[in-house]
Amino acid sequence: MVTTERDYVAEHRDDLLHDLDQWLRIPGISAQPERHDDVRRSAEWFADAARRTGFPTVEVWGDGPWLPAVFAEWRSDDPDAPVVLVYAHHDVQPVDPLELWHTDPFEPTIDGDLLRARGASDDKGQLLFHLLGLQAHLAATGRTSPAVTLKFIVEGEEESGSPHFEELLATHRERLACDVVVVTDTGMVAPDVPSTVTGMRGMVAATVSFHGPDLDLHSGVFGGAIPNPATEIARLVAALHDDQGRVQVPGFYDDVLDLTDTERDLFAKVPSDEGEFLKVTKSRALRGEHGFSTLERLGARPTAEVNGIGGGYIGAGHKTIVPSDAFVKLSFRLVADQDPATIIKGVEQFVTDHTPEGIVSHVEWEGSGVRACLVPLGTPAYNALSGAISEAFDGAQVLPTREGGSGPEAGLQAAVDRPLVFLGVGLPDDQIHAPNEKVTLSMLYKGAEAAALLWTRFAEVGAEALRSS
Amino acid sequence: MVTTERDYVAEHRDDLLHDLDQWLRIPGISAQPERHDDVRRSAEWFADAARRTGFPTVEVWGDGPWLPAVFAEWRSDDPDAPVVLVYAHHDVQPVDPLELWHTDPFEPTIDGDLLRARGASDDKGQLLFHLLGLQAHLAATGRTSPAVTLKFIVEGEEESGSPHFEELLATHRERLACDVVVVTDTGMVAPDVPSTVTGMRGMVAATVSFHGPDLDLHSGVFGGAIPNPATEIARLVAALHDDQGRVQVPGFYDDVLDLTDTERDLFAKVPSDEGEFLKVTKSRALRGEHGFSTLERLGARPTAEVNGIGGGYIGAGHKTIVPSDAFVKLSFRLVADQDPATIIKGVEQFVTDHTPEGIVSHVEWEGSGVRACLVPLGTPAYNALSGAISEAFDGAQVLPTREGGSGPEAGLQAAVDRPLVFLGVGLPDDQIHAPNEKVTLSMLYKGAEAAALLWTRFAEVGAEALRSS
Repeated sequence: MVTTERDYVAEHRDDLLHDLDQWLRIPGISAQPERHDDVRRSAEWFADAARRTGFPTVEVWGDGPWLPAVFAEWRSDDPDAPVVLVYAHHDVQPVDPLELWHTDPFEPTIDGDLLRARGASDDKGQLLFHLLGLQAHLAATGRTSPAVTLKFIVEGEEESGSPHFEELLATHRERLACDVVVVTDTGMVAPDVPSTVTGMRGMVAATVSFHGPDLDLHSGVFGGAIPNPATEIARLVAALHDDQGRVQVPGFYDDVLDLTDTERDLFAKVPSDEGEFLKVTKSRALRGEHGFSTLERLGARPTAEVNGIGGGYIGAGHKTIVPSDAFVKLSFRLVADQDPATIIKGVEQFVTDHTPEGIVSHVEWEGSGVRACLVPLGTPAYNALSGAISEAFDGAQVLPTREGGSGPEAGLQAAVDRPLVFLGVGLPDDQIHAPNEKVTLSMLYKGAEAAALLWTRFAEVGAEALRSS
Repeated sequence: MVTTERDYVAEHRDDLLHDLDQWLRIPGISAQPERHDDVRRSAEWFADAARRTGFPTVEVWGDGPWLPAVFAEWRSDDPDAPVVLVYAHHDVQPVDPLELWHTDPFEPTIDGDLLRARGASDDKGQLLFHLLGLQAHLAATGRTSPAVTLKFIVEGEEESGSPHFEELLATHRERLACDVVVVTDTGMVAPDVPSTVTGMRGMVAATVSFHGPDLDLHSGVFGGAIPNPATEIARLVAALHDDQGRVQVPGFYDDVLDLTDTERDLFAKVPSDEGEFLKVTKSRALRGEHGFSTLERLGARPTAEVNGIGGGYIGAGHKTIVPSDAFVKLSFRLVADQDPATIIKGVEQFVTDHTPEGIVSHVEWEGSGVRACLVPLGTPAYNALSGAISEAFDGAQVLPTREGGSGPEAGLQAAVDRPLVFLGVGLPDDQIHAPNEKVTLSMLYKGAEAAALLWTRFAEVGAEALRSS
């Protein structure tokens, strides 16, 4: 009895809805220690679901400092089949402020094509469409094992910043070996605009401190005759950008991979509503590097932002001092091929160059930084992904997008040293990390169909070509 | 039996030392409510001392929200004699950190020419030399009443910022009417360099707030595409001064009374040790408006200083946000003839000019500001003061200096609307407001002698000429 991926998905939607209803009731909030038992229950629930789907190997990894992660593996009966590692996470964001929710965050509620619950979009819904997709893949191809060897790594700490993910990856390095990585934790531009993320920015972050006089001084008795570290740190911040919004750190743009004409053309096709962007950001104006669109600024250009600034007296009223100290917390979002180590050196040079006589500066880094993650267009892995998504969306062109933030993807890619692509069907208005999170069910079905098709396409491309991406 | 002012002072030094020893034991710390009984005892002690000296009218003014002040009046038997109002204060600074004191702050200790105790220099010693000086004046002139009508107003809240002094002045306006004011709460350059303060700076202070997005935004997802209020407030601060250290507020220097050539020559004669200044300020470099010496920058030039700056995340570690808000606390020290109201308007214009699109700015002022207090050189009152000091210092030239801070003097001058001069004998190393405060006894004797001589000189000048200063 032959079926298509689409038909199978359409006929088994209720299975997905039933599973979602169960899983979304488990409040696995990794950021809240009192919910860590729920995080474990959440992992166990998904492990059972994977076993039910047919995965021969399913393990809950609780053998490290991390919260329970799930590893599931289903080897293809073709010994030469590519090995695909799917990344997702099963933990969810906190739900505060609870009073802003219109429904109970852990009582999944269906409203037409929308399913509301914490984790519906980020990331339980997106992980579960894979189970349905895999069954559709088997049914449509008539196989008893997938066309590719599938490994799932489902993290339990992503919403807490993946503090132990690199350690987990190192511990289980051999089990996670693969030819290509599929990340399932992102979104598309709109229901009728299929797209795939092709980049996430990297980051380095530092606190720059300026020390002036060894004590706070009376600004009347001494003001106007000695350097003021708060004024000087402000001058350093002001010098960070030129009038064109370009970051003035020496060598900052040297290794930036410029957007190709093709990429810019494709970026320009992404529907972008500036009014909507201002509404989402509750902002009053756009601002950024001249010569680039908002989407390009967010995804494809590196930035320098002040995350915090402080110094002197900041309480009520006034204390007329020349402060002894001031500091600024800076973060730099990086794009391919910027090297965090090079940027760190450049920032230190910038600070040295902008430390005036009489001021002692100090730079303290948050770790060693994270590289950007970039998916080049036109590689075999990208083309297979793009083709599978396009087929699920009736042949529509798949647009590449980029995300401005930094997730565990760069670390994952570095650990397995393989190409990575993004298959995600969230939507911009899913309210992830916010009250009233929802997922659009028809997007989940599209995701299941695209996943089912993707395994066939990956098998056709073959392991070696995928790796070479 | 005829004597000279100097001989009388020399012969009655022990009286001064005895009085000081008593009064300095009373810990009248106005900033500490638990010491307010001591502030009252301190006022009562001085009132008694004034009565012993012969003042016919002595009142402790406790009839307002202020801590007790002392008013003492001794009318000259010459009905045309000038009326002189002497200002000083009897409260003292807190003594923390106590562990840094080498002797008990309220156990006066004599060590050669030095007397150590809290308040020895600021301001009990300087007020008490007046009582000895007045007796010397009477003895040397053979008078039974002073050559001028003397009124003393001795405040009890100066070390707490004189919060009720204007109200006290308004309440007792008629009692305080005078022809000239003598402020006794300042110092000289060095024991062998007699000098007099000829200016104190005024001030306006404000908090400037910048509001960007209505909520803190993720600096990865949104950074690089919207204005960052912390970056923008830093740019405003950086724009406050040009490369020459000149304040860029519109019209800032329009009303600044430039130093005359005479004043600059006299300023240049004041011994000034930059190494010592860096030591006192625990600083590593000098900085200020180009074209002016440190002394000129501190006393005769207006400034803009950042007293505090804040915005975004300032705790440990990092929170990668584009903050919603940032602010800077600014104070501007003013010199004659800058009008606080004009400067306030200029700063508001500057803020408007430096508020970029997408940022909402707000300026909140601390009150309406304080004008600078300036003593013009060469007036009858100044010449009389300078002559009296010079005579006490064996004919040495008296140098004019200026203080950078702002005290209650401008308010006092405005309330009585009369010229004001400064007779003070503190020294730069007196450690006022710090542990181990001391006064140099020989300076107190010089002060007593100068005061004794001053009343005679003022009488010779006459009321009308003094007022016209």
